[in-house]
Amino acid sequence: MTNTPSVFSLNGQLITDNVPLTLLSDRGLAYGHGLFESILLQESTLPLIKRHLSRLFKDSSKLNIPINIELVGDYLSQFLGQLNARSISQGVVKVIVTAGQGGRGYQSPEIIEPFIICSYSSLPKGTEEFRNMPVNVRCCEHRLPTSQVLAGIKHLNRLDQVLARREWCDDYYHEGLMFTQSDHLIEGVSANVFIKTMAGNWLTPSLDQVGIAGVMRSLMIEEIFPACDIPVEVSTITMDELTQCQSLLMCNSIKGLAKVKTIYDSQNQLLNSLPTDQQTLMLSNKLIEMYPQYQ
Amino acid sequence: MTNTPSVFSLNGQLITDNVPLTLLSDRGLAYGHGLFESILLQESTLPLIKRHLSRLFKDSSKLNIPINIELVGDYLSQFLGQLNARSISQGVVKVIVTAGQGGRGYQSPEIIEPFIICSYSSLPKGTEEFRNMPVNVRCCEHRLPTSQVLAGIKHLNRLDQVLARREWCDDYYHEGLMFTQSDHLIEGVSANVFIKTMAGNWLTPSLDQVGIAGVMRSLMIEEIFPACDIPVEVSTITMDELTQCQSLLMCNSIKGLAKVKTIYDSQNQLLNSLPTDQQTLMLSNKLIEMYPQYQ
Repeated sequence: MTNTPSVFSLNGQLITDNVPLTLLSDRGLAYGHGLFESILLQESTLPLIKRHLSRLFKDSSKLNIPINIELVGDYLSQFLGQLNARSISQGVVKVIVTAGQGGRGYQSPEIIEPFIICSYSSLPKGTEEFRNMPVNVRCCEHRLPTSQVLAGIKHLNRLDQVLARREWCDDYYHEGLMFTQSDHLIEGVSANVFIKTMAGNWLTPSLDQVGIAGVMRSLMIEEIFPACDIPVEVSTITMDELTQCQSLLMCNSIKGLAKVKTIYDSQNQLLNSLPTDQQTLMLSNKLIEMYPQYQ
Repeated sequence: MTNTPSVFSLNGQLITDNVPLTLLSDRGLAYGHGLFESILLQESTLPLIKRHLSRLFKDSSKLNIPINIELVGDYLSQFLGQLNARSISQGVVKVIVTAGQGGRGYQSPEIIEPFIICSYSSLPKGTEEFRNMPVNVRCCEHRLPTSQVLAGIKHLNRLDQVLARREWCDDYYHEGLMFTQSDHLIEGVSANVFIKTMAGNWLTPSLDQVGIAGVMRSLMIEEIFPACDIPVEVSTITMDELTQCQSLLMCNSIKGLAKVKTIYDSQNQLLNSLPTDQQTLMLSNKLIEMYPQYQ
């Protein structure tokens, strides 16, 4: 892996050598009792930080992790300063917030004192291609389990994504599409999706049963689609709608937006080949116009 | 929490002060990419260690974590020695095995070098009551999502248990019963279950779609039921079968076996009150006879 994190802070303290022993009894490690945000670092700033912090704050309460979101913001600012001092101005800043130290056993401690871990990594491989050329994607065999309570949250229980990501190692594919056990399209392994149906309607999967509600997804729905005057609907999307769609977009807040060229099944058989679509280009150009960091 | 872990080793090294920085980029922490075993420590030995190591070995391959199980055994022996040196002879030894250091992103590194963490805690509160007197249990509202690939594995993605365990804090209840979205009984929050149906048949839930296949569950199926000459079947168990059952047993490898006295619903309304059952006593006595550590 070339993309190993290289700078760390824990609860606002830069960590260069050893980590406190308490991390070994962290509930994030023990049970995945925590959340994370991967935030684009561009020209020494975190352009979408408000959206990330707002999601983190909203979702942490669903896992009963009390966080002072201003404090997290302060830790991130300090961390940016530390990256600056190392002349690091671009890449990914990841924040993990866990339920902190816990005893053995699932019961949460009465007082939760979260661990807040910041780390830096370079931009993921393939970011430039993702942004700038139509990409190939494939359907994953691994199916997502549904859970209303956990749906939408970017929590630390991510074995489904880990197992799905193992299904391919060929760089030809930029993303894997993930489905429910009922074969409804939900998302990419690390991206949200938008499709233009055969009838010409733009849809993005409903995430009220499963999936991660990405920051770029909400930005697309709230800003980019409206700015292009293109309606978009949150809906169930079937496998048939995917194989017959006119256009497929994949997005995340690090890599930005990708126009999909071809969709393959999990046996690497071509399912759908997508021509250039005018609305797709409009959306892609609008994102870059409003958020030039995704150029 | 009184039950905070107090002795740690990492990859065989006793950790008394600081933890290596590499743990901050551990895939166990980042994604719950790992497994764990909680092992009873009794008279300075780990009586069921073979069953624990065999499950750990079998399940680690399902998560593509290559472990040398003899090495894990060696680490555990060394850890026992360290506990001995501290005059600690009883409690819980927990082993966490993670996929080790990883870059940012779900893709596993080509070479996985697992972290193996051992820790010690005292026996959980209520262990004696669990073993020695009929207990009260309640049904959890939180529903378990099904996932064939992950079913049965004691992996680190345990938010479902964390959320279910938050539903009660009254010590009156010793366990919470967990169900699928289709209201099939699966397990306790930290125990497996056996019921005796109205018709007098012993059943334990099938765990091929969801659930943790506990070491004590397999010991009951393979040794205790046969030793009592009582047939037991792995089966689907409905809510109706639960509310009409003659007997309910809960078990885990730390606390042993509990006879359930009353079953409440999630609103604390009594669902079923269970009289003393001769076969239940036989099973309970046989376990203690064959495994006196659960006395």
